[in-house]
Amino acid sequence: MSAFPFDISARDGRARTGTLRTSRGDIRTPAFMPVGTAATVKALTVDQVAQTGADIILGNTYHLMLRPTAERIARLGGLHRFMRWERPILTDSGGFQVMSLSGIAKVTEEAVAFQSHIDGSRHILTPERSIQIQADLLGSDIVMQLDQCVSWPAEESAAASAMQLSARWGNRSKAAFGDRPTQALFGIQQGSTFEHLRRESADRLIETGFDGYALGGLAVGEGHAAMCEVLDYAPEMLPADRPRYLMGVGKPIDLVEAVARGIDMFDCVLPTRSGRHGQAWTWEGSLNLKNARFAEDDTPLDEASDCPASSHYSKAYLHHLVKAEEILGQVLLSWHNIAFFQTLTAAMRLAISEGRFEAFRRDFAARQVK
Amino acid sequence: MSAFPFDISARDGRARTGTLRTSRGDIRTPAFMPVGTAATVKALTVDQVAQTGADIILGNTYHLMLRPTAERIARLGGLHRFMRWERPILTDSGGFQVMSLSGIAKVTEEAVAFQSHIDGSRHILTPERSIQIQADLLGSDIVMQLDQCVSWPAEESAAASAMQLSARWGNRSKAAFGDRPTQALFGIQQGSTFEHLRRESADRLIETGFDGYALGGLAVGEGHAAMCEVLDYAPEMLPADRPRYLMGVGKPIDLVEAVARGIDMFDCVLPTRSGRHGQAWTWEGSLNLKNARFAEDDTPLDEASDCPASSHYSKAYLHHLVKAEEILGQVLLSWHNIAFFQTLTAAMRLAISEGRFEAFRRDFAARQVK
Repeated sequence: MSAFPFDISARDGRARTGTLRTSRGDIRTPAFMPVGTAATVKALTVDQVAQTGADIILGNTYHLMLRPTAERIARLGGLHRFMRWERPILTDSGGFQVMSLSGIAKVTEEAVAFQSHIDGSRHILTPERSIQIQADLLGSDIVMQLDQCVSWPAEESAAASAMQLSARWGNRSKAAFGDRPTQALFGIQQGSTFEHLRRESADRLIETGFDGYALGGLAVGEGHAAMCEVLDYAPEMLPADRPRYLMGVGKPIDLVEAVARGIDMFDCVLPTRSGRHGQAWTWEGSLNLKNARFAEDDTPLDEASDCPASSHYSKAYLHHLVKAEEILGQVLLSWHNIAFFQTLTAAMRLAISEGRFEAFRRDFAARQVK
Repeated sequence: MSAFPFDISARDGRARTGTLRTSRGDIRTPAFMPVGTAATVKALTVDQVAQTGADIILGNTYHLMLRPTAERIARLGGLHRFMRWERPILTDSGGFQVMSLSGIAKVTEEAVAFQSHIDGSRHILTPERSIQIQADLLGSDIVMQLDQCVSWPAEESAAASAMQLSARWGNRSKAAFGDRPTQALFGIQQGSTFEHLRRESADRLIETGFDGYALGGLAVGEGHAAMCEVLDYAPEMLPADRPRYLMGVGKPIDLVEAVARGIDMFDCVLPTRSGRHGQAWTWEGSLNLKNARFAEDDTPLDEASDCPASSHYSKAYLHHLVKAEEILGQVLLSWHNIAFFQTLTAAMRLAISEGRFEAFRRDFAARQVK
């Protein structure tokens, strides 16, 4: 029995909408989680993030354990209090960024050893230590198991052994996590693009038993089509009554296609990262605000939006801020993009509950200018 | 008869408090104007700036005429609409930054010729063109005359000729400005640290007749003591019934000492610039948030403040953001500093109206840790 009830209120094809009820508030699904890497959703105040309608944000264990350290955050009352975000937080395990950001990472049965990208200091992350950091020190609401993610393309043997190690680490994570009335633990399916490995991974995760299930090892370079192929079969291998979380995804079109295949939760740095680089995501596709065609465009990015960044400022003003490399340009475009992703998930929730998700999906794809 | 009535409601020694009534709203004096160089108070939304209690902001003609250009802003409805700030805006003449930022600037009786620091393009600024940019194209509420500011220390002959040129340019500015029912024109006193030149400058400005009078040529390296010496005599040379504006000042202690000498208005990049570099201004002096002593300091910068940046976040969190070079650290410290400067001017207004400004001034200086 999970700490967090998950009520699915409507299904439409394989898409579903519902509510994951946590002790810090409800998470409406499909849900997009803004990424708050270093205890901040980059460039935004927590009030701005909350105003977009985000029910939950994500924190990165790798970054936080190195700076300001998990122990310091614990002494300061935990991650929620430290960054003043009162709603739910999901933390990743740290494993993915150990592989992608740190110096030489060495994976053994026991742990992953790595060097900090900040100061070169040496660290060891075990499944148990990751649980301790996330659940005890940061005080995360949704804790992720440590896993090993292979890059793409992967040899089948490498994908198999990483998946099997992840399954064993999932088991150790579950044992370390124990029973917690106000926190949840999610397992992570691996297996790259190999269906039988995804199946084996799902079976082993279900045997261990988690509060929710993530799909890892996607959005690592395989592209939209190959990801969709995996999503044609992988989500259904995971329990239908628990939330399914597609890690690190993605563009708006990825979200819509993944929801169509039974995914409930997402996280991605895309809206904030691309916002810092002058890119805005809209119903008509992505716009590069540096483009001279916006220099005297007096219209806002989305006049129907409740978000001030989307509806109050003209594209001409945003163009000026981006060209002048003003911080406010980074702030407003990050804010707009997070708001757009929330608007998109809200629109999907409504379409599913009204039984018209297929029409929504078709219209959405048609409107997105490449 | 000026477009903007200036009602002085209380005097305490030479300090005074009142209201400058403009067509876009009241400016409570003493007033601190946040600097919005390139149509943005750096790192802050206009809503955040307004929330600090700022009645008026300043825009820089030099920056705006080069990018996005004054003509473009005019086509987009003027500076207020472009940046979505509905309260009053004062613009400088562009002259100061032509001297300090551009390539070789050449001053003649007619104009100043200069090269853009952005792309090297050549431009000419006359007193008349500065008025046109500010009053007609940007739509500024308070327009400054073009002047020539000498650096410090200055030879008396150089200070005299720059002051006299400024007086002639003031005359031309007034003629170009004409009669405007909803905009005001301020003249600028020059004369460096020479009392008789300040006197001659004031007399010539008064002869021309302006809606308000600025003190230029200070805060250019002479230091607090030398500035205060000039402020001992220069403000009183200017009409007592019109606002006196000390340009480019300054630190909190400078503001308090200038108000004690009859100054009503200020502008400075200090709160935003130092905020972007990790410095916070408080009743106890300035704090460098990078300092390790704040790493686990759970107290806010000013728990009594209405500004979220001042009262919601701990110094430990701000320390973390500054160390991690997060944009949010620049945002929160800029916001806090602008709020502190507004809180300081509000406290001075109250102290003057209650006849206890001398006690306030003494207490303030005693609390400011060096």
